[in-house]
Amino acid sequence: MARIVMKFGGTSVADLDRIRHVSALVAAEHAKGNEVAVVVSAMSGETNRLVGYVDALAADTNLGGDIDDEYDAIVASGEQVTSGLLSIALRRRGVKARSWQGWQIPLQTDGAHASARIKGIETLAFNQSLKDGVVGVVAGFQGISPQGRVSTLGRGGSDTSAVALAVALGADRCDIYTDVDGVYTTDPRIVPEARRLGRIAFEEMLELASQGAKVLQTRSVELAMNNNLPIRVLTSFAQDGEPNPGTLVCAEEETMEERVVSGVAYSRDEAQISLLRLDDEPGVVARVCGVMAEANISVDMIVQGTSRREDSANLVFTIGRRDLDKTLATLETNKKKIGFDGLLYNDKVSKVSVIGIGMRSHAGVAHTMFSALAEKNINIEVIATSEIKISVLIDSDMTELAVRALHSAFELGVS
Amino acid sequence: MARIVMKFGGTSVADLDRIRHVSALVAAEHAKGNEVAVVVSAMSGETNRLVGYVDALAADTNLGGDIDDEYDAIVASGEQVTSGLLSIALRRRGVKARSWQGWQIPLQTDGAHASARIKGIETLAFNQSLKDGVVGVVAGFQGISPQGRVSTLGRGGSDTSAVALAVALGADRCDIYTDVDGVYTTDPRIVPEARRLGRIAFEEMLELASQGAKVLQTRSVELAMNNNLPIRVLTSFAQDGEPNPGTLVCAEEETMEERVVSGVAYSRDEAQISLLRLDDEPGVVARVCGVMAEANISVDMIVQGTSRREDSANLVFTIGRRDLDKTLATLETNKKKIGFDGLLYNDKVSKVSVIGIGMRSHAGVAHTMFSALAEKNINIEVIATSEIKISVLIDSDMTELAVRALHSAFELGVS
Repeated sequence: MARIVMKFGGTSVADLDRIRHVSALVAAEHAKGNEVAVVVSAMSGETNRLVGYVDALAADTNLGGDIDDEYDAIVASGEQVTSGLLSIALRRRGVKARSWQGWQIPLQTDGAHASARIKGIETLAFNQSLKDGVVGVVAGFQGISPQGRVSTLGRGGSDTSAVALAVALGADRCDIYTDVDGVYTTDPRIVPEARRLGRIAFEEMLELASQGAKVLQTRSVELAMNNNLPIRVLTSFAQDGEPNPGTLVCAEEETMEERVVSGVAYSRDEAQISLLRLDDEPGVVARVCGVMAEANISVDMIVQGTSRREDSANLVFTIGRRDLDKTLATLETNKKKIGFDGLLYNDKVSKVSVIGIGMRSHAGVAHTMFSALAEKNINIEVIATSEIKISVLIDSDMTELAVRALHSAFELGVS
Repeated sequence: MARIVMKFGGTSVADLDRIRHVSALVAAEHAKGNEVAVVVSAMSGETNRLVGYVDALAADTNLGGDIDDEYDAIVASGEQVTSGLLSIALRRRGVKARSWQGWQIPLQTDGAHASARIKGIETLAFNQSLKDGVVGVVAGFQGISPQGRVSTLGRGGSDTSAVALAVALGADRCDIYTDVDGVYTTDPRIVPEARRLGRIAFEEMLELASQGAKVLQTRSVELAMNNNLPIRVLTSFAQDGEPNPGTLVCAEEETMEERVVSGVAYSRDEAQISLLRLDDEPGVVARVCGVMAEANISVDMIVQGTSRREDSANLVFTIGRRDLDKTLATLETNKKKIGFDGLLYNDKVSKVSVIGIGMRSHAGVAHTMFSALAEKNINIEVIATSEIKISVLIDSDMTELAVRALHSAFELGVS
């Protein structure tokens, strides 16, 4: 007997037929004698419909203050509906089941509405219910704030709900069902030869997720890594009897595959800022970062003192493209405080990254990477590296070309 | 300064434009310095959509037990969404507001899912919020069960939520906004001359509601009457500046209008059962009622020992037409126990009622009623009376004719 948390995303519960299919998958795990908790997202399209209502009302005027608490109350209803429907579908198969809303468990969060963080999960009642053989169907993405209001964890938060619940319940495994059959060496829409990975280390998955791969939410991987909880990513769309091994995200020592690079990730949602003729004094980077942090804008890649252009740029950094307007306004306002004299920006850039735990012990990855890009005449604007990752910022139009060149250079494809 | 509960039904919050309009009505009451609590239904169509999901899954098989608890969790989400949206619309007008779900207040109910009854309302936090000038936007129709699950009060339950909340809060008034501008002497779709009543006594409203008028839910009127809380029924569709007096439902001594009959109600949802050749012994009616009660079927009009037909029917009674199949099966099963020898049923019958507190002190109402029906050659199958009401069961095809004849006979129209 094992204790298993199964999570199903929006496309897996998109309509009643999909919910019936999911109930069969859950019933099969339960029939093996396992204790099963299920975490569900809203039926696909529901969250967008509800967010659309909020946006339409919120756009009316700028008066009236913050509305994130009500956004949460509204949007959390999507998961509430799915949890009830799946419970009914399970009972129709003769499986004991009940729905749990975030406030019922309760799953406690902080008060940062719309992007709350989990503070704790009270498992006493939930645990007893599992032991009684009842499948617990949990509305993902939501919790209860210290003020007793409904809170949500931000987009993709259901992955985090599932992992956090699995950790709190001491589950043996957390299975994340989605619309792809695992984690790939890169996006198969760009590289048809992309290969499903049998296993991947937490650290690699974390870099893949934060560098643009959308299969798992970053925070959920972090949480699983910190608690050494294996996550299995697999599809809910497999036919009966079809093998569905998925990808196991686990500790490095359990990956058992010898490879230098595991995957190539990309993100088009980037913008590059160059600050020109900065004051030549210590602390100027700290001032820029301080100003940006105050405006709640995340700075990603940072390079000081380099430029291949005529204008002598002293600081180049990247931000999320959605933050571009806010960034330009913030920098303009703080021009004197920071001490710069000119500003260039480029919102036609992409970030492409190669990721692999093997990099730690293998030299030559950078050389292979830059050679492959040079061969295709792809200019590199900025470079950033970590122990297990090299990222480059390039012209957006070159994204697919770069991903294909790197995937091929590191021989990641199906052999 | 007054304390007011305002309730808006599904058509009043049907879309974002209607919700914006409602926010203007609420803001206007709040701007007068009043403490305002609002109770909202689901956007019209939402409840049907959600119930449709449940019905589709529930129809899959008959196994798997009761699902009313999950029905409640699913369907209550409709009101949750509206409460959040109206709160946002109010904030956009600069009015402090927040949503309250049933479990947040909490509004405690019994455990009879899908048709729960209110047991109590904890007003401490809600009260304080009102005193702080915050409009409390309450999701109607829902509460929390003794097991901590979401419960719902059954269709039309938002009226009951509103009245119960008004009573618990010691509100001065409960305004029920709907898509008609008050309570009419009868259905204006049948009688164009039907007149809006300025005031109506609780008892009359109760009879009107239970005899088929759909403007207020029966239980909400009962609750208002028992607590002597005036209800105003008015439209949410009035244009700005248009007078909107509505109808005040209040204690008899405050109605101030001298009239014998206040209204004519009708219901087409009736079926008539005749049990033939019943055992001639005491207790036979009790046995029939006992059997029906066990099957959870409400019996309405009952007449013993009368028939104008060849078959000597010993007992005639009416039930809701939706219960006909269940009733026939129940009676067949218990034929021996009850002791009858034959059964006739008629599902082409309507109930038409005249209602008025003045009947208590005025003779001649029955005479006027039966004369008016006889004049139009309308046969009466069954008669039932109370202190303030006379109901007749007639051929369904005669419904409109009877309603018009009675409305005219009692001179209820616009003079």
